[in-house]
Amino acid sequence: MACCGNCFCCQCCCREGETRTPEELTILGEIREEEDEILPRKDYESLDYDRCINEPYVEVLEGMDNKKARKYEAVRWLMVFAIGVTVGLVGLFVDFFVRLFTKIKLSLVADSVEKCTDKGCLALSLLELLSINMTFIFIASVLVLIEPVAAGSGIPEIKSYLNGVKIPGIVRLRTFLCKASGVLFSVAGGLFVGKEGPMIHSGAIVGAGLPQFQSITFKRIRFDFPYFRSDRDKRDFVSAGAAAGVAAAFGAPIGGTLFSLEEGSSFWNQALTWKVLFCSMSATFTLNFFRSGINFNKWGSFQLPGLLNFGEFKCSDGDKNCHLWTVVDLAFFVLMGVVGGLLGALFNCLNKSLSKYRIKHIHPKAKFIRVLECLLVSMVTTMVIFAASLLLGECRDLSTPTTHNSTLSGVEDINSTIRQFFCTNKTYNDMATLFFNPQEAAIHQLFHQDGNFSPVTLSVFFLLYFLLACWTYGVSVPSGLFVPSLLCGAAFGRLVANILKVKLGMDIYAGTFALIGAASFLGGVVRMTISLTVILIESTNEITYGLPIMITLMVAKWTGDFFNKGIYDIHIQLRGVPLLEWETEVEMDKLTASDIMETNLTYVYPHTRVQSLVSILRTTIYHAFPVVTENRQNERDFMKGNILVSNNIRFKKSSVMSRAGEQRRRCQSMKSYPSSELRNVCDEQNAAAEPAEEGEDLLQQMLERRHAPYPNLCPDQSPSEEWTMEERFRPLTFHGLILRSQLVNLLIRGVCYTESQSSATQPRLSFAEMTEDYPRYPDIHDLDLALLNPRMIVDVTPYMNPCPYTVSPNTRISQVFNLFRTMGLRHLPVVNAVGEIVGIITRHNLTHEFLVAKLRQHYITI
Amino acid sequence: MACCGNCFCCQCCCREGETRTPEELTILGEIREEEDEILPRKDYESLDYDRCINEPYVEVLEGMDNKKARKYEAVRWLMVFAIGVTVGLVGLFVDFFVRLFTKIKLSLVADSVEKCTDKGCLALSLLELLSINMTFIFIASVLVLIEPVAAGSGIPEIKSYLNGVKIPGIVRLRTFLCKASGVLFSVAGGLFVGKEGPMIHSGAIVGAGLPQFQSITFKRIRFDFPYFRSDRDKRDFVSAGAAAGVAAAFGAPIGGTLFSLEEGSSFWNQALTWKVLFCSMSATFTLNFFRSGINFNKWGSFQLPGLLNFGEFKCSDGDKNCHLWTVVDLAFFVLMGVVGGLLGALFNCLNKSLSKYRIKHIHPKAKFIRVLECLLVSMVTTMVIFAASLLLGECRDLSTPTTHNSTLSGVEDINSTIRQFFCTNKTYNDMATLFFNPQEAAIHQLFHQDGNFSPVTLSVFFLLYFLLACWTYGVSVPSGLFVPSLLCGAAFGRLVANILKVKLGMDIYAGTFALIGAASFLGGVVRMTISLTVILIESTNEITYGLPIMITLMVAKWTGDFFNKGIYDIHIQLRGVPLLEWETEVEMDKLTASDIMETNLTYVYPHTRVQSLVSILRTTIYHAFPVVTENRQNERDFMKGNILVSNNIRFKKSSVMSRAGEQRRRCQSMKSYPSSELRNVCDEQNAAAEPAEEGEDLLQQMLERRHAPYPNLCPDQSPSEEWTMEERFRPLTFHGLILRSQLVNLLIRGVCYTESQSSATQPRLSFAEMTEDYPRYPDIHDLDLALLNPRMIVDVTPYMNPCPYTVSPNTRISQVFNLFRTMGLRHLPVVNAVGEIVGIITRHNLTHEFLVAKLRQHYITI
Repeated sequence: MACCGNCFCCQCCCREGETRTPEELTILGEIREEEDEILPRKDYESLDYDRCINEPYVEVLEGMDNKKARKYEAVRWLMVFAIGVTVGLVGLFVDFFVRLFTKIKLSLVADSVEKCTDKGCLALSLLELLSINMTFIFIASVLVLIEPVAAGSGIPEIKSYLNGVKIPGIVRLRTFLCKASGVLFSVAGGLFVGKEGPMIHSGAIVGAGLPQFQSITFKRIRFDFPYFRSDRDKRDFVSAGAAAGVAAAFGAPIGGTLFSLEEGSSFWNQALTWKVLFCSMSATFTLNFFRSGINFNKWGSFQLPGLLNFGEFKCSDGDKNCHLWTVVDLAFFVLMGVVGGLLGALFNCLNKSLSKYRIKHIHPKAKFIRVLECLLVSMVTTMVIFAASLLLGECRDLSTPTTHNSTLSGVEDINSTIRQFFCTNKTYNDMATLFFNPQEAAIHQLFHQDGNFSPVTLSVFFLLYFLLACWTYGVSVPSGLFVPSLLCGAAFGRLVANILKVKLGMDIYAGTFALIGAASFLGGVVRMTISLTVILIESTNEITYGLPIMITLMVAKWTGDFFNKGIYDIHIQLRGVPLLEWETEVEMDKLTASDIMETNLTYVYPHTRVQSLVSILRTTIYHAFPVVTENRQNERDFMKGNILVSNNIRFKKSSVMSRAGEQRRRCQSMKSYPSSELRNVCDEQNAAAEPAEEGEDLLQQMLERRHAPYPNLCPDQSPSEEWTMEERFRPLTFHGLILRSQLVNLLIRGVCYTESQSSATQPRLSFAEMTEDYPRYPDIHDLDLALLNPRMIVDVTPYMNPCPYTVSPNTRISQVFNLFRTMGLRHLPVVNAVGEIVGIITRHNLTHEFLVAKLRQHYITI
Repeated sequence: MACCGNCFCCQCCCREGETRTPEELTILGEIREEEDEILPRKDYESLDYDRCINEPYVEVLEGMDNKKARKYEAVRWLMVFAIGVTVGLVGLFVDFFVRLFTKIKLSLVADSVEKCTDKGCLALSLLELLSINMTFIFIASVLVLIEPVAAGSGIPEIKSYLNGVKIPGIVRLRTFLCKASGVLFSVAGGLFVGKEGPMIHSGAIVGAGLPQFQSITFKRIRFDFPYFRSDRDKRDFVSAGAAAGVAAAFGAPIGGTLFSLEEGSSFWNQALTWKVLFCSMSATFTLNFFRSGINFNKWGSFQLPGLLNFGEFKCSDGDKNCHLWTVVDLAFFVLMGVVGGLLGALFNCLNKSLSKYRIKHIHPKAKFIRVLECLLVSMVTTMVIFAASLLLGECRDLSTPTTHNSTLSGVEDINSTIRQFFCTNKTYNDMATLFFNPQEAAIHQLFHQDGNFSPVTLSVFFLLYFLLACWTYGVSVPSGLFVPSLLCGAAFGRLVANILKVKLGMDIYAGTFALIGAASFLGGVVRMTISLTVILIESTNEITYGLPIMITLMVAKWTGDFFNKGIYDIHIQLRGVPLLEWETEVEMDKLTASDIMETNLTYVYPHTRVQSLVSILRTTIYHAFPVVTENRQNERDFMKGNILVSNNIRFKKSSVMSRAGEQRRRCQSMKSYPSSELRNVCDEQNAAAEPAEEGEDLLQQMLERRHAPYPNLCPDQSPSEEWTMEERFRPLTFHGLILRSQLVNLLIRGVCYTESQSSATQPRLSFAEMTEDYPRYPDIHDLDLALLNPRMIVDVTPYMNPCPYTVSPNTRISQVFNLFRTMGLRHLPVVNAVGEIVGIITRHNLTHEFLVAKLRQHYITI
C-alpha cells in the first residue's frame, strides 16, 4: 500500500492509476503555480516503527522475563557506548587528516607566496595552489562517483531517515567509507564546504551499522548477532549515531541529542533519550580524550572543547564598562535576524534553482560531467580567493597580541593565524587572513581579532563567499554547509559591528555581533530551531548568549519562511522524499481520513492458496496487505438492527461508511469537475451503477443483487475487469495486516499446508527466522516457483500484525496525522463502525502536497 | 469510566464492586508484601489532551482560515512571553525577599554572637535566633494551613499534572499566593529547605492561570477572553510555566525545557517545545535584567547568571598541571555515584517512613498540630546548628584571598561569606561558615574555598544536615529539596576530596569532587536524569563537566533504583496519584487490552430521554459514556458470513471478542481461584448460564434465546438486577464518546427536542457555549430538575467525540500504553473486530500496580 497514495480520484472509475495529483488538478481547471514543482516520489518506503506483535513475537515474549529484558537492555547500552566511541574516533580521523592536509597545503603555498612576492612569480604560486586543490577535489568527486549518495551534506538524508523514510543506500558501509574519506579531500581542497554535515551522516551510518554486525557491501562481515533486526531498533540507533555525529562535530552533546529528537522524534521516549545523550557524551569525550592526548600530549585530561569551538568571548580585564551585549543591542540583533533571514532565503532560492538545473541538465548526462563540474568549481574558487587576496586585500598594522592571552590551552593564539600574504613586514593582509586559513580559524579571526578588518574587505569577502558557497553546495563532493554559513554570516556580523563601532561610535563588543551575524545567516539558511540554538550556545560555551542567539534564530527563521523553506528541506523536496511535517495546518482538519485514504485495496484472506499469493505479490507493488474475511450481510443487518433500536430515528446510517459507498461518492464528486475527459470515464462507470440508485439505497440493492458464492479460498485477488462495482467493493471485515516481506518469507520457507490437513500442520517459523534477512528481504521474483506447490494453502494469521492501530473514516486529519507520525506507522488501516476496512493511509497520503491537493478538491466539491 | 478501574474480577458475577485489587488478591491467596502499601486512588481524573472534534468544534474549524490560525498562534506566543516574564518577576520577588530576610537575620545574629562571645551571653543569641526563626516558620505554616496543597516542593504535584492527572487545587491562584509568600519565610526561617521547588510550582500556576484571565479564588478577576479553555491548552501552558520556573530557579533555560518535556511529554511537538524554550529564556532574562539592574545598578546589561550558580571552576592561572578532572578521577566519580545512590536511597527510605507516619498520625488530627510540628522542626534545627557551630566547629586560619579574584561581577568574593563565629581574630569557624550562611553561599564555600574544612566538620555537617533535611521535607511549609540535597552532597564530595588530597596526596581539584558529590547525592534522592544533567551543566556553565556529571547521575540513579523510587515519585505514590510510567515493562506484553479493560459499562444511546440521562448522571460516577446502538444480529451473522467464506475453516471465531464472551471468560477464570467465597458467588451466577454451555456455543444460544424488543429510547441504563447476563452484555455498536461535563452542559442549556418533532429542531450550542464553564463544569446535582421536561429527548451525537482513538481487544499492553500516554488520552474504548464496544481503558487500568496485579492473575490462570 505504500506506493498507492497518488490516486486522489477513484482509480476504479477512471482507470488513471498513473496520473499525478497536480496533473489532475490541471485537468480540473486548476493552474499549477510552478511548472516544474517536484512532487513526493511514490517509490520511497516508510520505516516500520510500530511493533508487529504476531505469534512468533509472542513466543519470544513468553520466554522473556525481567532478567532477560535487563540483559537485552545492557546490550543496548553497550552498543550505544560503542557507537559513541566509534563516532568520536571517526571525528578524530576526519579532523586530524583535514588539519594535516590543510596545514601542508597552506604552508607550501605560504612559502611559495613569500618567495614569489618579491620575485614576481605569483602565477607559479597560483598554479601550485590550483594543482593541489584540484587534485584533492578530483579524489573527492571520484569517491562520490562510487557511491552517489555520499554527495552533499547528508543531513537531508538523515532527516528523511529519522522522519521514517527508507532511502536506499544511505546507511550502508560503502556510503560511510566514501563520505568519511571524501570529506577530507573536499575540505582540504579549499572548497567552501564544511565537514560537519558529513560527520553527522557518518555518525548515523555507524549507528545503523554497528549493532547489525553485518554489511551488505562486504558480505564477509557477518557475525551471528541476532539482535536489533528491526526498523524500530535500527532507527533508534541511527538517532543515537546522528546525535553522536553532531556532538563530535560541534562539541555539543546536548545539542546533538536535541537534533536527533527534533528530527527523529516519535513519542518522547525517556529511555531512548537517555541513551542518545549518553552516546553523544561518549562521542564528545572520546574525541576530547584523544585530541588532548595527541595535540597536547596530555593523555587522560579533557582539555579541548569540541571540534567547532568559538573561543572565549570575554571582555578585557581592565575594561569595567565592557558588556558582551546590552538590552540596546537586542534591537540590532533583531534587525540582523531579519537581514540574515533575507540573505538565507536568497541563498536557498539561488541554490534551489541551481540544483534544479543540475537535476535536469547534469545528472542525466555521463557521470564524468559531475567530476568536471567539481573541478570547475574548485578552479574558480581557487582563482577567486587568490585574486581577491592579491588585489583587494588591505595591508593593516599588526596589533600587539595582548588581549587574548588565553589560558585555555585549547584555543590557539588568535594572531598565529594571521596571514601576511602580499604585504610588507609588520602588516598583514586582511583578505588573505580570511581566505587562506581553515574556515574555523577565519571564524575565530572574525569573532576575536581586535585588529580591524576593513568594511570593503568584509563586504567583498561576504559577497564572494556567499556566491561561491551557494554554487558549491550541491556539487558531487561530500560537503557540509554549517561552517561556510557561519563564516559568511560572521563576516556580515563583523561588518555591522565595524559600522556601528567605527562609524557610529557605539560601545559594543564586536565579537558578539559577529556571532549574531553568523547565527542569523545560518538560521536563515538551515531554519533549524531548537537544536541549532543549543548547538551554538554549547559551541560558545556561554549561556548568557542564549537569549540573543535564540531571538536572532527565531527572527531569521520567520523572515526566511516567508519566502521559501530551509536548505535541507529544499533538497529533501528536490529528491522527492515524502517527508511528514511537524503537524498539519489547522485548515487541514476540514478533511477526514476518508477523504485522503486509498480505497483501492488488494487484500488476502486468512487462508490463501500459494498460487494466489504468488500472483498477488507478482502483480502488485503494495508493501502490505490487509487480511480480511468477507462479510456480506453485516451491513444490511446493521441497518436493521438500528432500525429496531430507535423506531422513528434512523441513527446516522451514513456514519457507517462502506467502501462501495465511498467509491460512489468519489465518482459522483468527479462529475462536478470541469474536465470532460475524466467525466466521461466516470459516467461510463456509473452507467452500470446508475439504475441501482433508483431504489432506496445503492448499498442495499447491491447487497440484494449479489449472486452465488465467490471463489473462496483462492480468489483472484486483483480486481478483474469483469467484476461489477459491488463485487469489487464488497464489505470486508478487517483482521490484520501482513507485509509483503513477511509473505515472501513464508513462501520461501515453505510455510503452508495441504487442503486435506488441518492448518495446525503448517510449519511454524520462529521470530529469528522471520527477521533473519533484515534489512534486505528477498524479492518475490527471486523465488523459484518450481519449488512451490500452487495448491497448498498458507495460513497467514500467525504472522500478520493482528492489531495495528486503526482509525475511523470520520477521524480528522490532525488526529490521523498525529497518530501516524508519532507512532511511526507505515500503514494505517481505516476501519468503519462495523469493523470493515474501507481504506488504508500511508505516508504518501499525508504529505503536505497531497493534503493541499485534497483540500483544494474539498473546496471544489462543497 | 475514570473511576472504575479497580474491578479486576467481574463485578457482574461477584457483586463486589467496591473491593480493591490487592484485597482481592489477598482473597485469592496472594499475600500482600507490604501491609500499608498505598494504592493509586480512583478519584483523580485524567486531563483530556486529545482534541474532541465534534460538531461545535467543526463549526469553529470551518470558520478558520490560515489568517485566523496565525492570529491565534500570535496570541499564544504573546501569552508564552507574558508567562515567562511573570515567572521571572516571581523569581525575582522570591529571591529578593529571601535574601533580604536572611541578610537581616544573619547580621543581627552575627552582631549578637560577636558581642556575646566575649561577654558570655551566648544563650541570649540563641534565643534571638530561635525567636526569629520560629516566627518565620509560624508564618509559613499558617500560610500552608490556608491552602494545604501549597506544602512541600510542588514538584510531585507538577509532575502529576504534566503526567495528565487533575489534582484539585494545584494550579489555583490561592495556592500560588500561599506558596510564593510561604517559601520566603520557610527559607528565611533557617529550615533546611530550598526555594527552587516552590518556584517551579509557582511558575506552573502562572502558566495555568495567566492565559485564562480568570480566577476561581477571586471571582472578580474575569475578563472576556475566551481562548485556551481546554485541558490541552492549559497543560501546554503549564509545561511552559514549569519550564520557566526551572529556568528562573537555576538559570537553566534548556534544562527547564527538558524538564517539562521529560515530565510532560506527550508526543514531541516542535511548536510547543519552541514556545517552552522561549518562555524559559524570557524568564531567565527577565530575572537577569532586573537583578543586574537592582544589584549592580547596571540596567540594560545581563551580567548575572541564574539564581543558583555554582561559580566558575577554574584552575589558578599559574598552575599548568592543574586539571579540573582527569580520566583517573572518573573511577572515583563512579564510586561516589554508587555511594550517593545509596545515601539517596536511605534518605528516601527514611523520608517515606516519616511521611507515612505523618499521613497516619498527624494529618487526621487538628490542623494546628501541623503548625506545632513545623515549630518543633524549626526549634531543633536552630538549636542543632548553634550547638554544632559552638562545640564542633574548628577555628582555621584565614587564607589570603588571592585565588578567586574573579572578574565576573555576578560571583561574590568567596571569602566574604566566611564566618568567624566563636573564633578569635584571623581565624574562622568552618562549621559556622557552612551553617550560618545562605545555602547557596555554603555551596560556594564547599566548591571554591581553597582553605580546608576539617574532615570531622564535614562529616558532622553532612550527618546533621542529612537527618534534619530528611525530617524537614514533608512538614507543612513550602519546601524545596534541590539546594539542601546539593549542599549535603557537596559536603560529602568535599570530604572525599579532602581525604584523597590530604591523606592520599593525590593531585585533584577539590571543587570538582564537591560538585560530583552534590550531583551524586541529588541524583540519588530525586533520580531525575536528562533534565538534571542539563540543569547542573548549565548551573556550572562548564560544558566539560558534562560527562562526569552524567556518569555520576546515571550510576546514582541505577544504584538508588535497586532500593526504592525517587523522592518525588515516593510522594506521588503516597498521595495515591495514578501516574503513568515511561513505558511498561517487557513482561507486561503478555497481557492484552482485553485483560485490563473495564467491561462494566454504562452507555447512552444517540437519542436519549432527559429522564434517562439524569438518572445515569445521578447514579454513576463515570466521567464519560460510550454512545452506542444495539446490534443484535451482528455477531451471529458475522459468524455465518465467515462460514461461507471458508467452507472448512472457521477463521478465528474467537478473535471476535464480545462483551458477553469476555464476561464468561472472566467468570470462569474466577473458578480456579482458591477463595471459596468468590467461587461460590461465581458459581451461583454461572448456574444460570451453565446449561447454555451444553450447546454449541453460549454466545450463539444467548443470541437465539433473546426475547422481544428492549425499551429503546429510554432504557433503564443501569443494569438492573433482573437482567440476564445476555441482556446485560448484549452487543453494542460503538459510535462515540461523550463526557459527563458535556451531558450536564446539554441538560443545563436545555438542548433537547420533543418526540413529535425532528431532532433537527434541537437547539444548537456553539463551541464557546460548550466550553464556557471550563475548568469547573457544573455538577448534575446543581441542576434544577423542575426546569427539565423528563420526556424530552436529547440528541447527543453532535456533541460527542465521534472518533476517539480505539484499540482492538487483542492489542498488547505496550501498544495500548504508548497510545494512551503519548496521545494524552482520558478514555480509550476497546472495540472488537465488528465494531462493538467491549470495554474501556482509563489511566487507572494502566498504572503499574494494576498491571502487576493483572499479570499475577494472568500467571495464575494459565
